[in-house]
Amino acid sequence: MGRWEPNARGRLATAALELYSERGYEQTTVAEIAKRAGLTERTFFNHYADKREVLFATAGEFQDRFVGAVAGALKSVAPIDALAAGLDAIAEMLADQRDFVRTRQAVIMSNPELQERDLIKLASTSSALADTLRRHGVPEPDASLAAETGVALFKVGFHRWIAADEERELSLLMREALDALKAVTAGS
Amino acid sequence: MGRWEPNARGRLATAALELYSERGYEQTTVAEIAKRAGLTERTFFNHYADKREVLFATAGEFQDRFVGAVAGALKSVAPIDALAAGLDAIAEMLADQRDFVRTRQAVIMSNPELQERDLIKLASTSSALADTLRRHGVPEPDASLAAETGVALFKVGFHRWIAADEERELSLLMREALDALKAVTAGS
Repeated sequence: MGRWEPNARGRLATAALELYSERGYEQTTVAEIAKRAGLTERTFFNHYADKREVLFATAGEFQDRFVGAVAGALKSVAPIDALAAGLDAIAEMLADQRDFVRTRQAVIMSNPELQERDLIKLASTSSALADTLRRHGVPEPDASLAAETGVALFKVGFHRWIAADEERELSLLMREALDALKAVTAGS
Repeated sequence: MGRWEPNARGRLATAALELYSERGYEQTTVAEIAKRAGLTERTFFNHYADKREVLFATAGEFQDRFVGAVAGALKSVAPIDALAAGLDAIAEMLADQRDFVRTRQAVIMSNPELQERDLIKLASTSSALADTLRRHGVPEPDASLAAETGVALFKVGFHRWIAADEERELSLLMREALDALKAVTAGS
C-alpha cells in the first residue's frame, strides 16, 4: 500500500472524468489519470481495479439504497408506494452530484462497452428489487413487474434530470414519471 | 458465394444451438458448426457474420414486428392498448418456437457477453418504441414510460413462458403481466 494521500479516491475520480471528457475514454490511460491527480499509478490501483471501475464505483451503493428503501417501506405500504420510497432515496443520493452525473453519463453514452455495463447494473438492481418484493410476500408476476417498473421509472426520471436544459429536481421528475405511468396504464 | 444449399441458414442455426448446448458457447468453433450442419465454413460466413450472430439473427425482426404493431394500433387506440397489440404480434412470432427459444435463452444466460447483447437488443427496442409513440403525438415522459413498460411486460411474460414447467401460451402470460401492472400501479 502507498502512503496515505488526502482524498486520493475523489481526486482520481475527478481527474479520470476530466480526461474521459477531454480526450475520450478509450484514449485515456491510468498513468495519465494518476498524473492529473498528482498521484501514482500504484495509488490508482489501490482504489480502483481499472479505468472502467471509476465510472461504476457507486453502482453497489445505488442498488443498496434503492433496494434498502423499498424493503423498509414494504413493511407498511403497497409495492408501488415502496418503489416511490426507493426512488426518493436515489434522488437524495444523487441530488448534489448533478454536474458530475451529467459528465459521467455523457462518457458512458460515448462507448458501447460502458453502455452495456450500465444496462447490466440496472438489470441487477431489477433482480434485487424483485427478490426483495417476493421476500415480502408479493407474488409473481407482480414482483417482477413492480421491479421492472421501478427501474423504468428511475431511467425515465434520470434521463430527463440530466438533460441539458432541465433544472427541476430528480425527486420531482421521478414522481412525475410515476404519475405518467399511472395515467398510461389506466388509459384504456 | 458458395453453391446453393437447401435451407443452409436453418441447418447452421440448428447445428450451432446444439453445439452451444452440448459443449458451451465459448468452446464451439465456426468450423464445428459448419461440419455438424454438413456445410463449409465459407457457407457459414455467407449467412452469419460470426457465431454470436446466430443467436441474435431475429433481433431485427423482433423489433420491427413489435414496433410495427404498436404503430399500426396507435391510429385507433390508447398507448397501453397499442402496446398490447405489439405484445400480441411478438407472441404470434414466437408461438411455435418455444423449444428453440428455451434452448437459445439457456445459452445466452450462460455467457455474460451474450446477456449484454440481449439487454442491448431490448434497450434498442425501447428506444424505437418511444420514437414511434412520440411520432404519434404521445408527449414525454409518457412516451418513454410507455416504451419501457412495453419492454418490461415482454420480459416478464417471456421469462415465465420459457420456464421449465410452464405450459400456458405467451400471449396469455403477457396479458396477465399487463393486468398485474395495472393492479400494481393502481395499488396505492
